[in-house]
Amino acid sequence: MSKAKSGQLLKGKTGIILGALNEQSLAWHIALQCKQEGARILLSNNRVALRLGWIHELAALTAAPVVCTDMADMAQVEQLIDDAMEHFGGKIDFILHGAAMSYNIRKQNPYTDLDHILQQKTMNVSALSLHKLLQAAFQKNAINEWGSVVALTFAAAQRVFPGYNEMGDAKALLESIARSFGYYYGKTHKVRINTISQSPVKTIAGDVIDNFDRFFHYTDQVSPLGNAPAAALAKFCVTLFSDYTRYLTMQNIFHDGGFSMTGISDDIEALNTIK
Amino acid sequence: MSKAKSGQLLKGKTGIILGALNEQSLAWHIALQCKQEGARILLSNNRVALRLGWIHELAALTAAPVVCTDMADMAQVEQLIDDAMEHFGGKIDFILHGAAMSYNIRKQNPYTDLDHILQQKTMNVSALSLHKLLQAAFQKNAINEWGSVVALTFAAAQRVFPGYNEMGDAKALLESIARSFGYYYGKTHKVRINTISQSPVKTIAGDVIDNFDRFFHYTDQVSPLGNAPAAALAKFCVTLFSDYTRYLTMQNIFHDGGFSMTGISDDIEALNTIK
Amino acid sequence: MSKAKSGQLLKGKTGIILGALNEQSLAWHIALQCKQEGARILLSNNRVALRLGWIHELAALTAAPVVCTDMADMAQVEQLIDDAMEHFGGKIDFILHGAAMSYNIRKQNPYTDLDHILQQKTMNVSALSLHKLLQAAFQKNAINEWGSVVALTFAAAQRVFPGYNEMGDAKALLESIARSFGYYYGKTHKVRINTISQSPVKTIAGDVIDNFDRFFHYTDQVSPLGNAPAAALAKFCVTLFSDYTRYLTMQNIFHDGGFSMTGISDDIEALNTIK
Amino acid sequence: MSKAKSGQLLKGKTGIILGALNEQSLAWHIALQCKQEGARILLSNNRVALRLGWIHELAALTAAPVVCTDMADMAQVEQLIDDAMEHFGGKIDFILHGAAMSYNIRKQNPYTDLDHILQQKTMNVSALSLHKLLQAAFQKNAINEWGSVVALTFAAAQRVFPGYNEMGDAKALLESIARSFGYYYGKTHKVRINTISQSPVKTIAGDVIDNFDRFFHYTDQVSPLGNAPAAALAKFCVTLFSDYTRYLTMQNIFHDGGFSMTGISDDIEALNTIK
Repeated sequence: MSKAKSGQLLKGKTGIILGALNEQSLAWHIALQCKQEGARILLSNNRVALRLGWIHELAALTAAPVVCTDMADMAQVEQLIDDAMEHFGGKIDFILHGAAMSYNIRKQNPYTDLDHILQQKTMNVSALSLHKLLQAAFQKNAINEWGSVVALTFAAAQRVFPGYNEMGDAKALLESIARSFGYYYGKTHKVRINTISQSPVKTIAGDVIDNFDRFFHYTDQVSPLGNAPAAALAKFCVTLFSDYTRYLTMQNIFHDGGFSMTGISDDIEALNTIK
Repeated sequence: MSKAKSGQLLKGKTGIILGALNEQSLAWHIALQCKQEGARILLSNNRVALRLGWIHELAALTAAPVVCTDMADMAQVEQLIDDAMEHFGGKIDFILHGAAMSYNIRKQNPYTDLDHILQQKTMNVSALSLHKLLQAAFQKNAINEWGSVVALTFAAAQRVFPGYNEMGDAKALLESIARSFGYYYGKTHKVRINTISQSPVKTIAGDVIDNFDRFFHYTDQVSPLGNAPAAALAKFCVTLFSDYTRYLTMQNIFHDGGFSMTGISDDIEALNTIK
Repeated sequence: MSKAKSGQLLKGKTGIILGALNEQSLAWHIALQCKQEGARILLSNNRVALRLGWIHELAALTAAPVVCTDMADMAQVEQLIDDAMEHFGGKIDFILHGAAMSYNIRKQNPYTDLDHILQQKTMNVSALSLHKLLQAAFQKNAINEWGSVVALTFAAAQRVFPGYNEMGDAKALLESIARSFGYYYGKTHKVRINTISQSPVKTIAGDVIDNFDRFFHYTDQVSPLGNAPAAALAKFCVTLFSDYTRYLTMQNIFHDGGFSMTGISDDIEALNTIK
Repeated sequence: MSKAKSGQLLKGKTGIILGALNEQSLAWHIALQCKQEGARILLSNNRVALRLGWIHELAALTAAPVVCTDMADMAQVEQLIDDAMEHFGGKIDFILHGAAMSYNIRKQNPYTDLDHILQQKTMNVSALSLHKLLQAAFQKNAINEWGSVVALTFAAAQRVFPGYNEMGDAKALLESIARSFGYYYGKTHKVRINTISQSPVKTIAGDVIDNFDRFFHYTDQVSPLGNAPAAALAKFCVTLFSDYTRYLTMQNIFHDGGFSMTGISDDIEALNTIK
């Protein structure tokens, strides 16, 4: 889409990218953009994701090692931080938290009839994992001053989107953790933490959402600029990792073509009349 | 504080009050006000709270039965709903969710060094319990049309208050669950669900918060009307249970003397200069 | 809609109701409810509105005097406050600001081609008039302690609804004035000021909005409880005037059947597919 | 502060910078950064500001022409757009709206005793001027696709800061206009419009605010990263003008070291106890 040439916004910086699965993944696009902007990166995902094998293609493209991490297990999260510091030979500059999984959506349990064991698992993997990651980095003092952590989220944290089910709650929790930890990490180490609330993108994660295509089409129509594509997110995300945004912290920023601020679009109203 | 006589806003209505511990509890005040407004109520709390014995005094004052419920256990939550329907001889009209516990605050673990098992327990008791409660009620079709559920929360869900530690995250999750379930329960059964974000009040729950008195004093100074007392909350809460607010749902309402909308107060600025 | 009998929430209180035009007006319904709850009221509107004559019917129903006020003229606003205090023989307890007019919408000027003289007139009548009203009351110390002022607004203050045109900006300004004055009036005189963000209602004000029926239908579908009717608003509004809500101030409360917190409804998604 | 070398984020782009007065001005810093990033710019301010003469120093540093514009006069705003298009030989890519003036603050009128003529003037210059600017650009189709407009604002638009007086209302109106016009301009021309809510900075504009130093100190203490300096704002602002943020529109972004998301800081609480 964009013809603008990329610069070297992340020259000399090092970072961890969590959650790339295949070339539809948001984290995949962000990893490529980080590389293009001059960063050295390390990739991580869980055992199942690694077994599928695509991530090794990304690893080759970005000259990045791959670390297997179960983000719900604090010991493994600590190992990830140790591995990254060893690999880079020092502290890191940025981290992307791009992992989320709803176990109840996968089982097609409606929000009014959740399996509460799965709900807890969803919260652990999709939200509390951010706290574990930040605590591990904080305790090991693993992030450079003015370093930057970004987690990906969606507008279901603010308003209800029925198809998102329990994931709306998980995202609200994720955003709160980013804010809370942002206070302490900012005050003591000048590390900043933000979340990006991104337009729907057709990924494997999206596939499990009921009627995703209809939903994608709807938000695309409502957004004055249309849904933000993954490549655009990647470009925006590197500005948050860069030194251009040092005083931005504890924020949730909507990167969504204007969707979040549009109450209704002329297009949707017109549609409404056809009935 | 208020000399206005109460009416009979809840005449003929029945409801469950969760979380009254002693006469400092917000839920205690709300229970009394519900009784005064003509409602029949049922009280519930966990085993530890019941053993302390104060709740039986409230039970006597409000002619209410007391049910012991571990809100983290779905079977017990379902039993609570069954007991309430049996006691009232039919569906119920309102529920107050006034229970919260931070296990990490109790252990004085800083937010950057949480015990993640306790963090999960905090989320379960303080936030996911609302989902269990609503799901149990929904599945049993236990709430009358235009019924009303209220959960108590605090502004730490929106902004960071260091002393609140992990409880800010729990409240963000709680508010999201209220919104999410509010969508489904509203659409199908016209039941509405809201949260009240209340000023700090000196309760046993507050006692465990580090430097609570300083914190209470600060919010009291910032709020143009001062901190809202528990008795005022009780009066506000019954309007949300009443038929005067039937189209209010999925909202988080700040009942805080204006604290949430005040960036800084003249008093605080003045204080600042003394330094 | 509601079968619940009204109490006497406003017994002994006195108030001013601004903006009632005919029996579709929100202010009309609120005036009737105030009367029913035991309040004595005074009605006010501008010359054009009075000439139409319906307000005298409301005056008869509510035993209220009618005062002609151009809300853009500070001298007339001050006279209104004087007249009210003289009529009631003392201070007043509540005020409803229910007046709004978009001069550009009336001329069918698109938002990208506004007449800026008319835009200023819209801001004056629909938003700055609230400041004039509050300043006049404040300077004359015309409102009792714990008195309550409510202004009516719409969700276009937060997100864009194309049909609302410049009125979205006017409502954002109105809400800000309510917050700002709420700080000062609360701190010095314990008077509280809030806004209610109400569902669309078929009124004469709505008539000038392009495609209002489609818009009304859309928000009705999105809201889990449907659009809030005017009679429900009236009941909610009296709770804000009453002593049940003394510590609620500087807030904007969405009384909208859940519309503001719903990102998309199943119904709208289904519609979307038909295409 | 930052040692990071700047790239060429705005290479080949052209833009208008409104509101630079002297080297304390936010717009001054932004103008310099735009130049450094490879943009060609045009400066504009009102007659009084130009007469002071500092802007010609900035003009020399940035090789920019200076246009005198009274932003409250639509004819002059249209002339500004014509001049810019003529100067650049085509459409422009970005505009900074960095002008604001409170006439009541200058007269030291308290918020509860405003001169309403001056209030209207404040709204015109500080907020409605953005609408005029955008309408002039829109009607002349003066901005390239994916062009970007940024207006500067402050957190007083969301919460009350007594010293900000009527300027909080003006900023709320400004932010609403950015959102509203963002919808139309985005949908039809893919032009995006955002506001940056910036930390207090010691500028001439700040000087008129009562007790500005105390206020600056307070927000600096509350913000985990401290107040964002003007140079940091300039770097952030160019990312919004660049092609890295194409799908960001209709947003208000807090560039404030975390102030907006901090309820209370440990430092402030500690201070509170000294009393």
